[in-house]
Amino acid sequence: MTVYTDRLGRARERMRELGVDVLLLSTGADLPYFTGYEAMPLERLTMLVVRADREAEPVLIVPRLEAPRVVEHPDAFAIRPWDETDDPIAVVAELARGVRAAAIGDQTWARFVLALQAVLPAVEFRRATDVTGPLRIVKDAAEIDALRAAATAVDDIAVVMRDRGFAGRREIDVHRELVERMLDAGHQRANFAIVATGSNAASPHHDPSTRIIERGELVLCDFGGTMNGYCSDITRMYSVGESAPDVRDAYDVLVAAQEAGVRSATVGTRCEAVDAAARRVIADAGYGDAFVHRTGHGIGAEAHEDPYVVAGNDTPLVPGHAFSVEPGIYLAGRFGMRLEDIVVATAAGPERLNRAPRDLAVVD
Amino acid sequence: MTVYTDRLGRARERMRELGVDVLLLSTGADLPYFTGYEAMPLERLTMLVVRADREAEPVLIVPRLEAPRVVEHPDAFAIRPWDETDDPIAVVAELARGVRAAAIGDQTWARFVLALQAVLPAVEFRRATDVTGPLRIVKDAAEIDALRAAATAVDDIAVVMRDRGFAGRREIDVHRELVERMLDAGHQRANFAIVATGSNAASPHHDPSTRIIERGELVLCDFGGTMNGYCSDITRMYSVGESAPDVRDAYDVLVAAQEAGVRSATVGTRCEAVDAAARRVIADAGYGDAFVHRTGHGIGAEAHEDPYVVAGNDTPLVPGHAFSVEPGIYLAGRFGMRLEDIVVATAAGPERLNRAPRDLAVVD
Repeated sequence: MTVYTDRLGRARERMRELGVDVLLLSTGADLPYFTGYEAMPLERLTMLVVRADREAEPVLIVPRLEAPRVVEHPDAFAIRPWDETDDPIAVVAELARGVRAAAIGDQTWARFVLALQAVLPAVEFRRATDVTGPLRIVKDAAEIDALRAAATAVDDIAVVMRDRGFAGRREIDVHRELVERMLDAGHQRANFAIVATGSNAASPHHDPSTRIIERGELVLCDFGGTMNGYCSDITRMYSVGESAPDVRDAYDVLVAAQEAGVRSATVGTRCEAVDAAARRVIADAGYGDAFVHRTGHGIGAEAHEDPYVVAGNDTPLVPGHAFSVEPGIYLAGRFGMRLEDIVVATAAGPERLNRAPRDLAVVD
Repeated sequence: MTVYTDRLGRARERMRELGVDVLLLSTGADLPYFTGYEAMPLERLTMLVVRADREAEPVLIVPRLEAPRVVEHPDAFAIRPWDETDDPIAVVAELARGVRAAAIGDQTWARFVLALQAVLPAVEFRRATDVTGPLRIVKDAAEIDALRAAATAVDDIAVVMRDRGFAGRREIDVHRELVERMLDAGHQRANFAIVATGSNAASPHHDPSTRIIERGELVLCDFGGTMNGYCSDITRMYSVGESAPDVRDAYDVLVAAQEAGVRSATVGTRCEAVDAAARRVIADAGYGDAFVHRTGHGIGAEAHEDPYVVAGNDTPLVPGHAFSVEPGIYLAGRFGMRLEDIVVATAAGPERLNRAPRDLAVVD
């Protein structure tokens, strides 16, 4: 039994429990989880059709010119290429004939959802995450190894950046350097590289600009990519020369908040309690209003996935949950700072996958 | 009146004609067309809500931590940020209260489509393309200038590559070079860079591999990105040393087919006739079965969009239609070749935006 037949078997078991008759997966991370194949986000439909009935073989519908890119796993699924003048929606409808409830991949394009609803008018559509989420949220040993390898690759970059000069460079130049270093370090894809300096960093998702980095400023570097199917995501802060005492004080609060969040992430703790643990440290120091986002997000094949470390999420952590802990302090017009590691919940306690130093690095 | 108020006005006029009460735009190219803002493909919903009623102001719902990235156009739309513990679906539902028909952006994630259908159970959902397609398919002068600038940037790269050595390098190394050259040439994003050598090129969408390029082989380079919101896309062929007579003969057929396709693309000609014009040349030379894809796709803010140059598309070309003409010949186990330019239909006849030489470049 391969990893794909095992996962498909567990998904079909869950479908039968939930009363889902067919699972329809297209773009997004569910498809590679079950097939090893990632669909191009294109107008040509790729879709895996998995019926709950034991006798029906899963079928991957794929545009003929993408078919050579699929690595075959005949024990797990059949491949059905379609030609330029075929109607792939009709092919899916035929395979889904007679079903009452379908679960469709969360990131499937609306145009395909609406087209399928039109040809399957009696079918109830729900989110594929109902089926796939509980499988994907618990990472197995191989998945954690992949996350660790990706984390180590960006750790090394975060360390190298401590010896690179920042003053006089533009944000986009540093952005570009981070992207290239991720690719050089074995990432197949750089997903993002936020470089925000000075008051720009008060916007947590600032787009790198042509702003020139000056001495005395903080630089926020938040970068990640995909390596062998699993994501990295790290945030480190650099101070170009010594920073002012109020900045250093805020940074000490941030380090303590991140530490509190990580330490709280023991098996059985609710996600919202991890959020609260980090948030309390920041609030107690008087920066409560300046921490404007959740504490973290799950990570795996997707850069953001379940479990979310946010108020209102009462999911208790179990071994194999992987997520970011990334509190921030953002003061409009002054500065912004964030500190982020990926953490895995284990029976022995929370394990940080990122090991790069977490101090405020003083750089040129 | 800005470009955005003008476009929103035309969209709302069309909505009233079609009986669409509200337009809901999220990820994809429609949103920046109407707002200048591109939504991150994330679990946090960004959505522009445009009601057909003249008195209702368009509202852009955006996660608070993305809000600073939005360039405000208060004459065109209001911005409504939502906080981490808010429910953006409820906000959209409130703004869409009382509507009967909604048109939702084609690339909106299924999870948001299903969530909106659940809270708006009486509403008929259709594709936003019904509203936005006829506007976006006809490019204005500024859009064509942007496409031309992007085309010129990749033309220059295609020319530079004629003097770069290929022999002994891996496909992924050339891929990486193309990506970096696109970024250096002013593209904000490299969308793809297919590098397929020898028999690998018989798969039209081959993923660049570690295969080493050898003398006597053909190299297919198909690359494009996004520059100032508009896409480039070019394919050129390189021969590492002289190629065999049968390869050169096939390439001559390919050049003639591409020329026939481009020349046929006059105003009033149906898209399917452009496809047929290119296909006929290849079929007449005996390679009909080896041309396994459509002749082309529209291009603009998206790398692939309407109009598609494919059998069955009876849309007649009008001035301002922009599309690729890219026939190919793929012989399994032997070689693959494709030649691609972006073409704009004009009253004065088809205009190629790409000007790089189209001969089979002999390289080291």
